[in-house]
Amino acid sequence: MSLTTAQEALEIILKTSEDFGTEDVKFLKSLGRTLKEDIVADRDFPPFDRVSMDGIAFSSEAFNSGQRSFKIEGVQAAGSEQLTMQNPANCIEAMTGAILPKNTNAVIQYELLTIENGIATINLELVKNLQNVHLKGLDRKQGAVLISENTLISPAEIGVLATVGKTTVKVAKQPKVMIISTGNELVGVCDTPEEHQIRRSNVYTLVSLLEKLNIQAETAHIIDDKSLLLTKINSFLNDFDVLLFSGAVSKGKFDFIPDVLKELGVQKLFHRVKQRPGKPFWFGKKGNKTIFAFPGNPVSTFASCLKYFYPWYYKSMGLNSENKNEAILTEDYFFKPDLTYFLQVKITRKEGEILATPISGRGSADLVNLVDSDAFLELPDDRRNFTKGEVFPLITYR
Amino acid sequence: MSLTTAQEALEIILKTSEDFGTEDVKFLKSLGRTLKEDIVADRDFPPFDRVSMDGIAFSSEAFNSGQRSFKIEGVQAAGSEQLTMQNPANCIEAMTGAILPKNTNAVIQYELLTIENGIATINLELVKNLQNVHLKGLDRKQGAVLISENTLISPAEIGVLATVGKTTVKVAKQPKVMIISTGNELVGVCDTPEEHQIRRSNVYTLVSLLEKLNIQAETAHIIDDKSLLLTKINSFLNDFDVLLFSGAVSKGKFDFIPDVLKELGVQKLFHRVKQRPGKPFWFGKKGNKTIFAFPGNPVSTFASCLKYFYPWYYKSMGLNSENKNEAILTEDYFFKPDLTYFLQVKITRKEGEILATPISGRGSADLVNLVDSDAFLELPDDRRNFTKGEVFPLITYR
Repeated sequence: MSLTTAQEALEIILKTSEDFGTEDVKFLKSLGRTLKEDIVADRDFPPFDRVSMDGIAFSSEAFNSGQRSFKIEGVQAAGSEQLTMQNPANCIEAMTGAILPKNTNAVIQYELLTIENGIATINLELVKNLQNVHLKGLDRKQGAVLISENTLISPAEIGVLATVGKTTVKVAKQPKVMIISTGNELVGVCDTPEEHQIRRSNVYTLVSLLEKLNIQAETAHIIDDKSLLLTKINSFLNDFDVLLFSGAVSKGKFDFIPDVLKELGVQKLFHRVKQRPGKPFWFGKKGNKTIFAFPGNPVSTFASCLKYFYPWYYKSMGLNSENKNEAILTEDYFFKPDLTYFLQVKITRKEGEILATPISGRGSADLVNLVDSDAFLELPDDRRNFTKGEVFPLITYR
Repeated sequence: MSLTTAQEALEIILKTSEDFGTEDVKFLKSLGRTLKEDIVADRDFPPFDRVSMDGIAFSSEAFNSGQRSFKIEGVQAAGSEQLTMQNPANCIEAMTGAILPKNTNAVIQYELLTIENGIATINLELVKNLQNVHLKGLDRKQGAVLISENTLISPAEIGVLATVGKTTVKVAKQPKVMIISTGNELVGVCDTPEEHQIRRSNVYTLVSLLEKLNIQAETAHIIDDKSLLLTKINSFLNDFDVLLFSGAVSKGKFDFIPDVLKELGVQKLFHRVKQRPGKPFWFGKKGNKTIFAFPGNPVSTFASCLKYFYPWYYKSMGLNSENKNEAILTEDYFFKPDLTYFLQVKITRKEGEILATPISGRGSADLVNLVDSDAFLELPDDRRNFTKGEVFPLITYR
């Protein structure tokens, strides 16, 4: 049986990215969303010749003609209309952020002045024209693009949106995601499981992983009953853009998901990937609906979401995710099967290097092991020996 | 005038961290919060001898005595009570996640079987005792600490909380934070500024930076009127744990904040730090209230929040933030003043290294420049020449 390689699987998935359109949101709610318009300077930056030190504004020509003491004619506060200096031999006290008074062209800070009886004396031998003046339009010109479309909005972008008065901003719409667990062994988090039962956890892990992308996903649990699965999944296919399954995609007698999806007209794009964990991963499309059916083991679900759903989401949003993470293996490692191996690692950062130390796992069912590690190091499927100091792709989750 | 060094300033700030107590939250709402209790295994992990492959369960003794074909006696589904194999020469089909049937001690997957007429034949010469059985308690024993107090809760921890049935979880309470802008030059984001005015942006940048820490801060604007500042700030000191100011801490005629805070009984711990940007930074305490008064230039406010408020917050939560970031400078850089310099850089990750490339800034008022960079590289104050390949502390914000 030929398995899809992890690389092929990712390529197939990325080809199926979807455009969910745009929506307008309040700028303060746009943190973590993808910008879908260019943000343009509504005026020059700075919008006026701006005083950049607290001190006095005066004429540098007067200074250069030998004058050192200047009578204070007034105060130019930040937020006040521009004053005009009446006498070119005088000065005006001017504050950081204020507009430069008319007939002045240099500012010297208080630290370099002596002020007595309304006269400011400059304790300097050299003053430059436009010293401590931040000229209108020096940073950006009106109409310049300040933030490009398809930028992920961080606090820095929020500040720029506020500055240009973009109270609402156009961002990429999020996909509507339904996360579905199956399996009769699962009981609720509030329940006390019988000996042969365990609590549902994968759906909540997935909810949290999607919350990190600002997606508010819904969740459902369906018992291993084929007709019930058919009805419910059919309805979810109508109401959601993306279905994420956890479990029931392997070879068990109650692993109905692949059959059910087929009956519902979902096109299988691959089933089973040459990887550990997550080999039974099933992926398909029905029109513009996208179905990720991850294996049910906790570590499989977790790693698969990061490795496959995240990049699909970034591509769908229009974000570039080219700046890929890599890390340096800190010890020799041996992995025999011909599978891409998502090795659980602890990350340390030292001297500008990202170091990945293997955490001895107890298999894909050991959810707790994820707590002790920070990331997966992706070891390729064509080798068995991985040497200390080698660099491999890194998938972080903290 | 002797300035506080950036390192001294941080040390002083960290000494004033506060314990805000704990609160119980729903486990799904605990993402990004700091855990304030040990999370303990409520049962063994796995809680039973767990089948880890879909296939048949049988007696390895029977196999080792030469038997290869086993009559299928029943099906052990995941989530069903434990079956008992009646005849030691038979087998039971058993699914991943199921409890291992009584009187069996090995599982072989379907891929290695031939099943015909209710008889499963194992196509193997060797079977190990407990093959494909995940033994009860192998991963963790009941009572073991799965997640330690003071862990930052990520999706991995959410999964574990669900598994052990922690529907509510004890986390560190967040500080109540008020973010205050001053300055008569500032108008609202919805407003159209006059020539000499600009829109408020720093408070929103700070709101977003705090949102990344899951803190929902409030905001206020106070005009440059000393009596108004006294009244309002006094009331904020009563109602909030932390005040973050942006502006009015320098030497301007309307920089009332240091005086006002003094009059209100706030103890100044330092004023002015040997750094660029952010030199006029003022920091103080009144009882258990903490006051960060950042300079008003956008880049100063931004860098200071990351450099000083973030570590103070982590320390207050009880989190270890010892895994410090560093990056490698990609080109020679010269910076003359005797100040710690927060150089704006673009980060690239390559071959396991974190590389920092300087972005030519236009000064601390150029908010837009933050959009083009990802981080600040912290260059020490005792040197002027910084060489390509050298490693410095890194403060990232994306």
